[in-house]
Amino acid sequence: MENLQKILGELEALKINMHDGDFLLTWEKSHDEILATLKTAAALKNLYENNISARVFDSGLAVSQFRDNSTRTRFSFASAANLLGLTVQDLDEGKSQIAHGETVRETSNMISFLTEVVGIRDDMYLGAGNTYMREVAASLEKGHKEGVLHQRPAVVNLQCDVDHPTQSMADLMHLEHYYGSLEKLRGKKIAMTWAYSPSYGKPLSVPQGIICLLSRMGMNVTLAYPEGYSLIQDCIDIAGRNANQSGGSFRVVNSMEEAFEDADIVYPKSWAPFRVMERRTELLRQKNQDALKELEKECLEGNARFKNWECTEEKMRLTKGGKALYMHCLPADITAVSCRAGEVSASVFDRYRVETYKEAGYKPYVIAAMMLLGRFKRPAAVLGELARRGKKRVG
Amino acid sequence: MENLQKILGELEALKINMHDGDFLLTWEKSHDEILATLKTAAALKNLYENNISARVFDSGLAVSQFRDNSTRTRFSFASAANLLGLTVQDLDEGKSQIAHGETVRETSNMISFLTEVVGIRDDMYLGAGNTYMREVAASLEKGHKEGVLHQRPAVVNLQCDVDHPTQSMADLMHLEHYYGSLEKLRGKKIAMTWAYSPSYGKPLSVPQGIICLLSRMGMNVTLAYPEGYSLIQDCIDIAGRNANQSGGSFRVVNSMEEAFEDADIVYPKSWAPFRVMERRTELLRQKNQDALKELEKECLEGNARFKNWECTEEKMRLTKGGKALYMHCLPADITAVSCRAGEVSASVFDRYRVETYKEAGYKPYVIAAMMLLGRFKRPAAVLGELARRGKKRVG
Amino acid sequence: MENLQKILGELEALKINMHDGDFLLTWEKSHDEILATLKTAAALKNLYENNISARVFDSGLAVSQFRDNSTRTRFSFASAANLLGLTVQDLDEGKSQIAHGETVRETSNMISFLTEVVGIRDDMYLGAGNTYMREVAASLEKGHKEGVLHQRPAVVNLQCDVDHPTQSMADLMHLEHYYGSLEKLRGKKIAMTWAYSPSYGKPLSVPQGIICLLSRMGMNVTLAYPEGYSLIQDCIDIAGRNANQSGGSFRVVNSMEEAFEDADIVYPKSWAPFRVMERRTELLRQKNQDALKELEKECLEGNARFKNWECTEEKMRLTKGGKALYMHCLPADITAVSCRAGEVSASVFDRYRVETYKEAGYKPYVIAAMMLLGRFKRPAAVLGELARRGKKRVG
Repeated sequence: MENLQKILGELEALKINMHDGDFLLTWEKSHDEILATLKTAAALKNLYENNISARVFDSGLAVSQFRDNSTRTRFSFASAANLLGLTVQDLDEGKSQIAHGETVRETSNMISFLTEVVGIRDDMYLGAGNTYMREVAASLEKGHKEGVLHQRPAVVNLQCDVDHPTQSMADLMHLEHYYGSLEKLRGKKIAMTWAYSPSYGKPLSVPQGIICLLSRMGMNVTLAYPEGYSLIQDCIDIAGRNANQSGGSFRVVNSMEEAFEDADIVYPKSWAPFRVMERRTELLRQKNQDALKELEKECLEGNARFKNWECTEEKMRLTKGGKALYMHCLPADITAVSCRAGEVSASVFDRYRVETYKEAGYKPYVIAAMMLLGRFKRPAAVLGELARRGKKRVG
Repeated sequence: MENLQKILGELEALKINMHDGDFLLTWEKSHDEILATLKTAAALKNLYENNISARVFDSGLAVSQFRDNSTRTRFSFASAANLLGLTVQDLDEGKSQIAHGETVRETSNMISFLTEVVGIRDDMYLGAGNTYMREVAASLEKGHKEGVLHQRPAVVNLQCDVDHPTQSMADLMHLEHYYGSLEKLRGKKIAMTWAYSPSYGKPLSVPQGIICLLSRMGMNVTLAYPEGYSLIQDCIDIAGRNANQSGGSFRVVNSMEEAFEDADIVYPKSWAPFRVMERRTELLRQKNQDALKELEKECLEGNARFKNWECTEEKMRLTKGGKALYMHCLPADITAVSCRAGEVSASVFDRYRVETYKEAGYKPYVIAAMMLLGRFKRPAAVLGELARRGKKRVG
Repeated sequence: MENLQKILGELEALKINMHDGDFLLTWEKSHDEILATLKTAAALKNLYENNISARVFDSGLAVSQFRDNSTRTRFSFASAANLLGLTVQDLDEGKSQIAHGETVRETSNMISFLTEVVGIRDDMYLGAGNTYMREVAASLEKGHKEGVLHQRPAVVNLQCDVDHPTQSMADLMHLEHYYGSLEKLRGKKIAMTWAYSPSYGKPLSVPQGIICLLSRMGMNVTLAYPEGYSLIQDCIDIAGRNANQSGGSFRVVNSMEEAFEDADIVYPKSWAPFRVMERRTELLRQKNQDALKELEKECLEGNARFKNWECTEEKMRLTKGGKALYMHCLPADITAVSCRAGEVSASVFDRYRVETYKEAGYKPYVIAAMMLLGRFKRPAAVLGELARRGKKRVG
């Protein structure tokens, strides 16, 4: 859409303080910093699509640590690292000689002597994932100050118990492109709603990330869930404050239909109840397998009471002109495709399938932007230099 | 052997249509396309051996998916990707969050946003491996057309239930170099024969690939196996037609000795009977462990009836001048070395050991050629530009 | 510290014969070769810290094979490979199709067609690890001579049953920087002592590597262990001879206190008794799980008799001015931090924590130096050319 020079001019004008820092929660970032992330991602996408190499690194490692299974994010992280010239080295705790009792501080330093970025997914333990990322970041900061590390690697949150910033930022970039600009998002109604799924224990970080980020864009955000499926209270509070400040709105309802009413955008997605996640975290720590099984059974039975929370054609007709944009972080639980009854009917999903794929396609650029902003003080100059150099990526 | 300019001139003259396509079966490729693959592989080998970098990509991913264990092909794929400047990202289904019921279409797109090549090994399920590759390829084709993927990744078959094109093409390249030219292969007699092995369930793709490819070169191809060890009928038909068209011949016999008689080349190699593989595929799908064990026992007992199908010194004396070239895709089951009784006697293998290693050594270049041809419309121009650039690979 | 031109001048003056060779044991290397490794590592560190790319390879593989868990060495190897422009390809025996009975010779060749370096960790079996590395090296040497391999990959010992040269060389580099020069190490007293650990089966290679290397530097080396915890006799002999030749000294005592007396440097570190490791090797080969358990129990009970072999503040007061430098290869068993009772008290470790991290930080450069020296005949010229080229590593 925009040309590169325009993007870089706008990026240059933003006041940001992201160099030698991390990307852990969108709400720790200023409005300019959110914009800078989008602009940088757009610039990298522009370079890629114009076959200009974006290798700002001739060597260097990007360490990944996945404490939960992952395909999409793993490939997005690998793509982002590769785009910038970094090589992924995975910290696989199974193959590691991480001694019992070895400190996070020590491991963080040991893996970082020639490392530029550390990407972490840690979303299983409520109250633990983001805390762990902060401990890693603090260790790297200290290691750099103590002279152990020549450079200060940037930590990128690849999904924690609180936020999923690479997802929410990719979602925002998708909306920006879909509607033509961020300005056009003002006043748009989005329904971030719970949806039924036959699976269990899905993290809360996607809905939390979405309500906390989109409420900053002057959008009217409705969060909908069945009773008992509330999110972390802090996130609810943040979304409310953000809406106030941005001139948007934020409300919570207990009806999918109510949320869909006149919505421009719908984001129906399952998650586990906050209280279940809390108990699960405890039980996981106790390694209490019996109680975990019991909890899973209970939780699935709980979900089953809300099978009607499905994004159907009927519900879609409630949205603005019956034509709301359907969003999902994928993979969606599609009724009669991936499960008997799920989050969305096959016909709705099919109509928006290509859009959801494009939505996912922004993630590599968003992650690369977070990496670049964490490592370079003057991102616009760096990107401009790449364009001037004009080295072909292919051929 | 040939110098680079000669190779590129010949490559330039070929009529090919491989750009934005896949390499799934050799018999889907025209004669010129087979030649182009050999020429491109030879050019890449020439560049490598002259210490000229063949990095046509400054960044980009080569995704690998191994649905069966692999060393040789895994390393060949990694070498090929690295030679061209691509970074391997492995799709490990064990570590993936590939949701139950997630479509191949979705996964294929999700791993391909910045991907140039997808290499797949899927040889366990008869009737399924090649089908799966086609589904991935169709998904990528569609994703590219729908605007999800900026580029159209090329799918390379790293062994399926039907063909093993990276092996058969490496074998052909070995023969070309061994005899000096493809022309010299005309009229040469090759015995592709079953051989006894104490192991079970070996795929049919190597013999199928060999008879279908070498029958195109004007060679006299004899396929030999004990009763009950036939191959997929389609491949038999193709080999016959190819031989007719190329001026060679193709016949099937049930005697190793008959096949060896006056042969220039012998390729003794074990495989499972087609019918066993069919039943095994069914039972694997049913996860019927008991029946699978029974089938294995039965199959090994079946094999044991043919322990005399061993490539011995005695049998080698039947070949032309007693000096046929011995070929194998490795690892071979060597009698008294890797097993009590196997495909080949130690003394025969030892005499040809270095040749079999060289045979394997063509594979990285063949795979790199398939990658390059799938991604570049004018391969000769691209390779010529690499030579002109003359960037040192080392030092 | 020193500037690059000075380092390269000194490197140029050394007489070395490391090209197309391996780095398996420090005591197989001449004094000049040890110095060349340190100089090359220092030059690479200098380039890195001055943001000059050290990519001497535009493509090529560095194969790693870890037959034991590893974090530190795995990341150091990956960093070193990446620094020089090589891509790590891991030979994971679990995912490999290494046939039962397949020879080391064959596998070594199959993984090396486009490979520059092979790094191996194999420290579990006494009498086997180093032997295995030699077999790989001999196979590569032969493969190169036979024309199978275009280049002769260098094997780097990433820890075996006998030596841990990447560790001992990093330790030496740390001492060189800590004291300002190798000259200043002359006459310094180092106590390489056993220490108590609640864990079992730690290799002997670190203490063996340390006594054999530092005894060459004119240092006064004291090895201390409780009765029954002796090392491989050959290493004891080598350390004695080295000390004689270098003008240093070497002695063995059975008291931690005696070793600490007036020491400039202490290196308290647990290891298993030689005889236990011997029996363990036998039992591992027999897969005798019951006997292995019994042995572990016995060994831990044995260790427990020596809980007073802990590096405490009290013992540190025995050292020179109470201020000996504490060293460790990490992770250390820290009393009341990583275990109830361990090798070192928390307060001692904390005081030297940053130094131990810096000590570990030399490892990537040491490994990269071993790679470079194994592959280039004129390392000073190669490094000088990198400096002249002056390609930025970042930005």
